[in-house]
Amino acid sequence: MRQHSTLSTMTEFELIHRFFSGLDFGPSTRLGIGDDAAILDIPPAHSLVVSVDSANEHTHFSELTLPEVVAYRSIASAISDLAAMGATPIGMTLALSLSEQDPLWLRSFSEGVTKAVYAFGCPLVGGDTTKGPLSISVTVMGTVPQGFGLKRSGATVGDLICVSSSLGDAAAGLQLELGTLFAEEHPSCSDYLLDRWSYPQPRLALGSDLLNSATACIDISDGFLADLGHLLQQSGVGAQINEAAIPISAELISVVGRAQALQLALSGGEDYELCFTLPSSVAVPEGCSVVGQIVATMGIRGLTNTPVRTGFQHF
Amino acid sequence: MRQHSTLSTMTEFELIHRFFSGLDFGPSTRLGIGDDAAILDIPPAHSLVVSVDSANEHTHFSELTLPEVVAYRSIASAISDLAAMGATPIGMTLALSLSEQDPLWLRSFSEGVTKAVYAFGCPLVGGDTTKGPLSISVTVMGTVPQGFGLKRSGATVGDLICVSSSLGDAAAGLQLELGTLFAEEHPSCSDYLLDRWSYPQPRLALGSDLLNSATACIDISDGFLADLGHLLQQSGVGAQINEAAIPISAELISVVGRAQALQLALSGGEDYELCFTLPSSVAVPEGCSVVGQIVATMGIRGLTNTPVRTGFQHF
Repeated sequence: MRQHSTLSTMTEFELIHRFFSGLDFGPSTRLGIGDDAAILDIPPAHSLVVSVDSANEHTHFSELTLPEVVAYRSIASAISDLAAMGATPIGMTLALSLSEQDPLWLRSFSEGVTKAVYAFGCPLVGGDTTKGPLSISVTVMGTVPQGFGLKRSGATVGDLICVSSSLGDAAAGLQLELGTLFAEEHPSCSDYLLDRWSYPQPRLALGSDLLNSATACIDISDGFLADLGHLLQQSGVGAQINEAAIPISAELISVVGRAQALQLALSGGEDYELCFTLPSSVAVPEGCSVVGQIVATMGIRGLTNTPVRTGFQHF
Repeated sequence: MRQHSTLSTMTEFELIHRFFSGLDFGPSTRLGIGDDAAILDIPPAHSLVVSVDSANEHTHFSELTLPEVVAYRSIASAISDLAAMGATPIGMTLALSLSEQDPLWLRSFSEGVTKAVYAFGCPLVGGDTTKGPLSISVTVMGTVPQGFGLKRSGATVGDLICVSSSLGDAAAGLQLELGTLFAEEHPSCSDYLLDRWSYPQPRLALGSDLLNSATACIDISDGFLADLGHLLQQSGVGAQINEAAIPISAELISVVGRAQALQLALSGGEDYELCFTLPSSVAVPEGCSVVGQIVATMGIRGLTNTPVRTGFQHF
């Protein structure tokens, strides 16, 4: 990793060192931050799983988003890709672009990093801090037993389509965060929805449990229908959806009503839950819902209305 | 990795797919781009080596830099960290932030990526494209035999201090690129220096050869003195430098004269050569120069002038 040697950048490094020096590296880390690269051990008979996710100000969060939440969400969204592969995290790198030094911003940001490191058991093993518009890019690494790993392909006719937990909460949370939705009459619901957006909980344990049973898996970041569409496309199959079985939280219905809640659940995005397919003989994991079944005919059937895209546009 | 599902982002993905679909994945890649994450195999009895490097427009390159060069340099600078560890590349992820879709820009950029993938034998196994100010963040992964890996610590008194190839060329190349240096009378020298900046050649083979012999190693990205300083600090030793032995190319001397050439060689930065220490009993690898010796007293001695910092300021 690039080292910075001028007086002003020493201050930057001192700050980062101060905020991140307390973090544990974990048993896989043979050499952590502080050299040209980190060295990690991979358990015998395991493969490396790797994914990258970025978040940019004005696109993925606003200037009003707490730096702690910016950090936590950036890491959680990347970790969610590991969960969708059934992988166990071993480490991550973080590229942070900052337009100016702001110790308070950095402190809050580092608290989000720390929270995520411990929540997901994923040490920060490398970083690069550069000058530029605010942007965070996280590469996560994990492991799966050799020959394993949940893919988007593999869903077969008759499989059950399942999702973990309720959908749409995070999309509503984002609208609350951006101030485009108000929920004064429902303060506790509002807190719940904001929390679901701010602190997504990647389903690592579930992904790991599914390694031996699921035929296909994807994480829901762009909305249930869009991500199910990717899974169907790569598996070469279609889906019959039972709209009434889509899990929606009471909090979401309280704040936006049932019709809008369904729209958000179908296509709001930002959920970081898993969508997976199971042979019908397999027991559905606790907390998960069966929302449909795989059919031979391509496409998605069973929806009463064509859903409106409500997630953000990238370009 | 996040998937984008709107019509406009389909175009973005189609473009990227078109430009990158011809790339080989290499034997370590069990599952490449196209799922939530990639799956890579690590050779038995090897550890994973990982590093991240970012480049932002206006900080690390200008709006006049060829997109191909932006891509190649971004990847080469990250790969150089693998070289400095003695690691063999197995794959990389690339996070690209773009403010707008520009097919010609993307085509040139993808050509730089392709060139780098083949030059360094490092497949692109994951990516994320987001909307935002132009920025490239590359995480590289490689392997070393378990228990090996060149570190910055380990240099001991009496060790020879060596560098690979000539220094300062890339710093002059950057000045030519930015138009702050002119070399009309020396067109071939100018081409050489520009090339040294545009297409750095990370010393992967050398790093690998040094695994059994070097006591410490670092790549020179911030300038020889700054990076030697990191090595000395982490090894707890000092250096006696033989200024006359610093390797400087005839091309650099032709363009800027001997005095300025030495300044650039000592602290220009951007070189991506290796600085390493060897027990005096070990033969110096071909193409490398001995520029000093490790001494017990901290600090760097033997310079006739205090060098002026000429590299860019990050903050």
